[in-house]
Amino acid sequence: MKGTVGELGEFGLIRELTSRLTSTPAVRLGPGDDAAVVSAPDRRVVASTDLLLEGRHFRRDWSTAYDVGRKAAAQNLADIAAMGAVPTALLLGLVVPADLPVTWATELMDGIRDECQVAGAAVVGGDVVRGDTITLAVTALGDLRNHDPVTRSGAQPGDVVAYTGWLGWSAAGHAVLSRGFRSPRAFVEAHRRPEPPYHAGPAAAGLGATAMTDVSDGLVADLGHIAEASKVRIDLRSGLIDVPTQMDDIGQAVGVDPLQWVLSGGEDHAIVATFPPDAKLPARWKVIGEVLNPSALPQVTVDGAPWTSTGWDHFGAQT
Amino acid sequence: MKGTVGELGEFGLIRELTSRLTSTPAVRLGPGDDAAVVSAPDRRVVASTDLLLEGRHFRRDWSTAYDVGRKAAAQNLADIAAMGAVPTALLLGLVVPADLPVTWATELMDGIRDECQVAGAAVVGGDVVRGDTITLAVTALGDLRNHDPVTRSGAQPGDVVAYTGWLGWSAAGHAVLSRGFRSPRAFVEAHRRPEPPYHAGPAAAGLGATAMTDVSDGLVADLGHIAEASKVRIDLRSGLIDVPTQMDDIGQAVGVDPLQWVLSGGEDHAIVATFPPDAKLPARWKVIGEVLNPSALPQVTVDGAPWTSTGWDHFGAQT
Repeated sequence: MKGTVGELGEFGLIRELTSRLTSTPAVRLGPGDDAAVVSAPDRRVVASTDLLLEGRHFRRDWSTAYDVGRKAAAQNLADIAAMGAVPTALLLGLVVPADLPVTWATELMDGIRDECQVAGAAVVGGDVVRGDTITLAVTALGDLRNHDPVTRSGAQPGDVVAYTGWLGWSAAGHAVLSRGFRSPRAFVEAHRRPEPPYHAGPAAAGLGATAMTDVSDGLVADLGHIAEASKVRIDLRSGLIDVPTQMDDIGQAVGVDPLQWVLSGGEDHAIVATFPPDAKLPARWKVIGEVLNPSALPQVTVDGAPWTSTGWDHFGAQT
Repeated sequence: MKGTVGELGEFGLIRELTSRLTSTPAVRLGPGDDAAVVSAPDRRVVASTDLLLEGRHFRRDWSTAYDVGRKAAAQNLADIAAMGAVPTALLLGLVVPADLPVTWATELMDGIRDECQVAGAAVVGGDVVRGDTITLAVTALGDLRNHDPVTRSGAQPGDVVAYTGWLGWSAAGHAVLSRGFRSPRAFVEAHRRPEPPYHAGPAAAGLGATAMTDVSDGLVADLGHIAEASKVRIDLRSGLIDVPTQMDDIGQAVGVDPLQWVLSGGEDHAIVATFPPDAKLPARWKVIGEVLNPSALPQVTVDGAPWTSTGWDHFGAQT
């Protein structure tokens, strides 16, 4: 294999990347034609697009190409699951500098492929272009399996708020890495490679979820999107929110209240949903608050009081 | 409206962009949730992704933001049509520098929206991120309406080769612009804003097309993809290929054989297909060659002889 993607050329790189892919029965026509064809048995298709840029969303010195691939795919597949749908397919637009090692691109592809397999999906197409900044444009597709999509706008006063998956682990890992450390490994790994509970999205639709989203900007921020869309207030109970002991330890070491990671850390792609108060939730769902009528308070409160941390704004925030 | 996208912020820009969009009955859930939901009545969805970078695929001094939007959408919607499908939806990933005027982004969106309307589709979602290089990641979806997809691999010896749309106009316009001229306007306009014959893709599927693609890399290069996938040779007849008089004039002025633009110029997104020899083709389809058994000759020949020009390689070519 030639050393850089510039030496290999566009068509060579595309061959190299597509040769690594696996398929599923939902893939009617995979990469190599003008477009892919994917089964949509529900007669509706769920679709979401995300961009990831080097320096902004990942760093090559912090994450391997494989982990960047896992994370990029996870982020988008979680969006599909958060609608209550089963992920089926993924398309990848990839901007690569000419001097990028071919192995970086192939390991990225391996990570994307493997994360797709975890979610039951497959890479079906994409595009590769030379440019200055490594950029991934990921589009995921999914099937609703005859459930209505669970949007952000259906939360009702009286509903309970529950989540499943991980909260704050990626943020704690980021805090560790940004201070030059590489451990505790569990949190660093969580930052490098989130594990969204894909199965929980369609399951929540079956359990009667009234609103749902994945936690990508932070729990309070993402619940704010639900509260805004549903015209309700959401109150979280800090006593119901577990902070793992190890996360407490990191918090003490770096001087941060770990509850802040849990409430405002994104990128773990936990799934949070509102359910009618009589919903029978399996043990893996943890109830952490309730839906109230709107009031003069902020749309998301903790123990009835405003919570100060804000969500992520890609333009406002400092890199 | 604030001056730059950095001043407006991510959420402000997204609001500004989505407020300009229109919808169609196929859009079950548009922008604003974790993912969009689009009708897929055929139980299969056709999907394609393309990347466009400033400096590589467009120049702000050559094209307005509106035209860049039209072209970016057209390029991807044409891929859907070239499978024999009807475009339904489009998702846009957009990388913008913080100092980009908001009006550039909104005019881009207007162009994308309008081109979607021409094709019968609508923008249903996307992502916006700050970065150094304006980058568009466009994903289009489409519905096959109970036709099998027309791939690149079905061409049979004895088939005729026919196209509909425009060939070489964009390349002639590019030649004009790259020499500092702004006319003839018809060709400059064709370069800035291609007009793919969207309707012709599904129509060709109904006419029995055996293989099909849109002309994005150049006629010979794209027919090469069909010849390769179908394991055939394709021979074009130069006498059947019309070169408009005005294109001849430009060719003389700039010292280029205009047949080269017709045979190797991309980006007009004409649709070229192979049909059984007894297919009854409407007048808007122009027969320009035939499908033969493979031989020692190149997979695409012109008047039985090799054609020297090659397709576009994003890594090999000089910008």
